[in-house]
Amino acid sequence: MARLERFGHGGDLDTAVELYGYAKEKLLDFSANIYPYGPPKAIVERLRELLAEPGLRQLTHYPDPDVRELRRMIANHHQVEEDQVLVGNGGAELIDLVVGVLSPGQVGVLEPAFVEYGESARKRDIPVQAVVSRWEDGFVPDWAEVERLLERCDLVFVGVPNNPTGHLVPQEMLKLWAERAVEEKTWLVLDEAFIDFVANGEERSLIGLLDRYPTTIVLRSLTKFYALPGLRLGYMVAQPEVIQQIKRQQVPWSVNALAQAAGCVALSAEVYEPYVEEVHRWLRETKQELLTQLASFPALEVFPGQANYLLVRSCQDGVTSRFLQEELGRRGVLIRDCGMYTGLDERYFRIAVKKREENAVLIESVKEVLVNEG
Amino acid sequence: MARLERFGHGGDLDTAVELYGYAKEKLLDFSANIYPYGPPKAIVERLRELLAEPGLRQLTHYPDPDVRELRRMIANHHQVEEDQVLVGNGGAELIDLVVGVLSPGQVGVLEPAFVEYGESARKRDIPVQAVVSRWEDGFVPDWAEVERLLERCDLVFVGVPNNPTGHLVPQEMLKLWAERAVEEKTWLVLDEAFIDFVANGEERSLIGLLDRYPTTIVLRSLTKFYALPGLRLGYMVAQPEVIQQIKRQQVPWSVNALAQAAGCVALSAEVYEPYVEEVHRWLRETKQELLTQLASFPALEVFPGQANYLLVRSCQDGVTSRFLQEELGRRGVLIRDCGMYTGLDERYFRIAVKKREENAVLIESVKEVLVNEG
Repeated sequence: MARLERFGHGGDLDTAVELYGYAKEKLLDFSANIYPYGPPKAIVERLRELLAEPGLRQLTHYPDPDVRELRRMIANHHQVEEDQVLVGNGGAELIDLVVGVLSPGQVGVLEPAFVEYGESARKRDIPVQAVVSRWEDGFVPDWAEVERLLERCDLVFVGVPNNPTGHLVPQEMLKLWAERAVEEKTWLVLDEAFIDFVANGEERSLIGLLDRYPTTIVLRSLTKFYALPGLRLGYMVAQPEVIQQIKRQQVPWSVNALAQAAGCVALSAEVYEPYVEEVHRWLRETKQELLTQLASFPALEVFPGQANYLLVRSCQDGVTSRFLQEELGRRGVLIRDCGMYTGLDERYFRIAVKKREENAVLIESVKEVLVNEG
Repeated sequence: MARLERFGHGGDLDTAVELYGYAKEKLLDFSANIYPYGPPKAIVERLRELLAEPGLRQLTHYPDPDVRELRRMIANHHQVEEDQVLVGNGGAELIDLVVGVLSPGQVGVLEPAFVEYGESARKRDIPVQAVVSRWEDGFVPDWAEVERLLERCDLVFVGVPNNPTGHLVPQEMLKLWAERAVEEKTWLVLDEAFIDFVANGEERSLIGLLDRYPTTIVLRSLTKFYALPGLRLGYMVAQPEVIQQIKRQQVPWSVNALAQAAGCVALSAEVYEPYVEEVHRWLRETKQELLTQLASFPALEVFPGQANYLLVRSCQDGVTSRFLQEELGRRGVLIRDCGMYTGLDERYFRIAVKKREENAVLIESVKEVLVNEG
């Protein structure tokens, strides 16, 4: 049967149009975890400027194959060396590259997790081992199991915070894992795609400590927090030797020129500081409210997590994530069915936190569906 | 020593700035083969519109993971089925994918050729076999040698027309190769990145005949002809089973949303027909003149080719491509040193055909250098 995640992910408006018949601009998309007020104004202005330039240089010339300016800014931002940074065509390219280039014999994943971790291994016929954490345990993975995973696998992915749960492994724990990974000569790949949304996120990151953990690789995304998924932009921070090894295998000109330009604006001091403030204020003001409203439905339980999305579980027979997705979809509201995640089942779905008034529409629609059903 | 092709390719303005100290907009770049009058106006207008939209949908939502609209237009353009088309993040991604996914034991290249053909194999430790054609033979490859290449290799790349020579294998010959490739179960990858510049290029293409040649894959680029290398956009046409196999290994959201939108405008009837006319008129009016002027230097010989660039050979001792590149670079004029191509040497360089007045600057600069030297 046709389903919204036909291509494996949320945020697929083209499929939603085919399924529910709404025009794209009428759809309210809670299935992708993007900051809802759009990118910083300065980025849009910069892109408009570039498209107003007489020579249209950013279109008519190749992008910098070495992504020099943006790498400089990223290095400066994190106080690391430029040769510790690799920029990619979205986080997805970087996930694919670490697996493709480092060629692990076995890949470990802390499930439930972003499907591309496992997918990047399975599509190369690399076996995937999982440690599955449970709602009942607050999605805290079992330390002994993680330790065994680091022993058995050559590369282990951890979402920090994790997607779709929002669970954030405390930094002290990550340090233990990273130490263990050094001892085991295992690559530990920390995907910090959503860490910008976490209060004091930079302090929770391991980027600043990578000198101590040479087998740890950190992935970052600029598309969720800066609301630029259409442009594609992410980066990786690791030891220079790893970066060099991976860079050699990366497709030339992988990062388009407009994405490079947007990234430079995003990390500039004038934009970065106030934008972080703005996004965190929005999340403080909306997430708790949305959580409370969702949790007020007797049929639903909500896992708070530390990110800009909420994992929700139905505890009412017949109210499956599939049913809710379908019913809400018919009302132009998209949610992420989490039935296909390892460790979750047909009861689970994910909701991105959006603008207050959009969240209200979601709540109204859920009310309609659950009341009609009940 | 620092060199312009430090990252393996022409068109690297950032390196040129480092080497020659000019601001980017002062550089005259003959090292990348891009249509010099920029993309069709309608594309730029469309991109500006998308950046003026209140919701900024093309930035704030994920690109269509299945590239539906553009694939439909490409299929319609070439009268093939939609499932015969795969869109990529520039031709470079597609070259990398065919080698990465089809995993040939040996790759064959008709040299001298675009370096990524060999590179995509070497970076995976796949041995590369070459058939080298020579200037003296008009760069016509030896049929018996090509036949042996198709026998020995599992995948053979052919530039149609070839880069950097501009040589175009006649369609009748390509058909023989494609037949041979079927018999040998060898993948024949025809890179038609520059075929749009060839008069009656579509008639020389094998896209319309792929049903007969199930092991032939055609690559196309939308970045040279439409002057959009900064955006990254290319596609592949082949049998549905191959497309499906390769698509499964492609990174999700590989093609950014603005590139998808630009491609749709490029192939629309209103834009395509007059634009092809415009580009072909420009090439007719400038290429022969530039060729004649270059050939009038006693130190230089020019190979005409069928594309929007000219392969040039120095026949004067001391006038190496490196020397010319350096001397012209100091004058803000960039050319492509072809010394690193298999089958060429330090005498060879490549010149893109540009606007008449830009070509005149090049000729003046070459005059200065060769007169100073002589």
